[in-house]
Amino acid sequence: MMNFEKTNKNLFLSFWPEFKEIVSAQETYAFDPDMSQQQAYSIWVEQPLESYVLVENDIVLGSYYLKANAMGPSNHIANCGYMVSKHARGQGVARQLCLHSQQRALTLGFKAMQFNSVVSTNEVAIRLWQKLGFDIIGTIPKAYQHKTKGLVDSYIMYKWLAEKDL
Amino acid sequence: MMNFEKTNKNLFLSFWPEFKEIVSAQETYAFDPDMSQQQAYSIWVEQPLESYVLVENDIVLGSYYLKANAMGPSNHIANCGYMVSKHARGQGVARQLCLHSQQRALTLGFKAMQFNSVVSTNEVAIRLWQKLGFDIIGTIPKAYQHKTKGLVDSYIMYKWLAEKDL
Repeated sequence: MMNFEKTNKNLFLSFWPEFKEIVSAQETYAFDPDMSQQQAYSIWVEQPLESYVLVENDIVLGSYYLKANAMGPSNHIANCGYMVSKHARGQGVARQLCLHSQQRALTLGFKAMQFNSVVSTNEVAIRLWQKLGFDIIGTIPKAYQHKTKGLVDSYIMYKWLAEKDL
Repeated sequence: MMNFEKTNKNLFLSFWPEFKEIVSAQETYAFDPDMSQQQAYSIWVEQPLESYVLVENDIVLGSYYLKANAMGPSNHIANCGYMVSKHARGQGVARQLCLHSQQRALTLGFKAMQFNSVVSTNEVAIRLWQKLGFDIIGTIPKAYQHKTKGLVDSYIMYKWLAEKDL
């Protein structure tokens, strides 16, 4: 049985090898590929408003963070990042993470969600976010130094979550 | 005579009334309109890589910060924010700040510069950034709660600074 749990230190540690592999691959995340486990924990769990893992039989299938994308007059827009464990790909985990995060964002009072750096070569993710209602609202030229493809563009994606305006 | 100086605590304190007025106006900055002087100092001077003031006869005409807009594979893109003192408007101060910041960004090894939240109603700023070579690369719908105009869009603006790719 799958269930969401708030990411604590132990859950993060069990997910860290997956996290490290994803960041080291330098294909999807604008995180330092050589970041330490402590830096990762700070960025993924401590600094955000919330962080969740999707767990099945004590195995972490994936994780996400949720935070405000900006302050003050723009603090109604949330920002999230998602990671899926290698062994759990192709099972709809990213979809579950994103749907859960949208619910959490609404519960926390956010009205919209924005992704600031969706690497343009990450086609599987882009298609999924689009299916879930996110639009590409901007393209950052030469934004990401892809490990094998060189400098590629990144997309900014956005979805209005609330039924009504502020 | 005008000159640029690194923002230190005293220079920031002399600029703080201007800073506070700009943020309180809730027309241009995605900062908490009620932020404290300590929070402002942290965001504007301590957290960024660099912060400068443009000074004339011991009076601060304006200030900017410079930092990396993202980490790791995207850490070649800089991000800046600029503020001009009320009494110094219409004298090309913002232009000088932006030109100086572009030079500093190149010196620090950045290849591009990105503004994440240019409020769409801030037409004077948008025209100036465009004149200085920045393009609007994206529009964030309903991104900014403007004090008098309600929810307005923000633009993401971008300029490639380096002559060559990475």
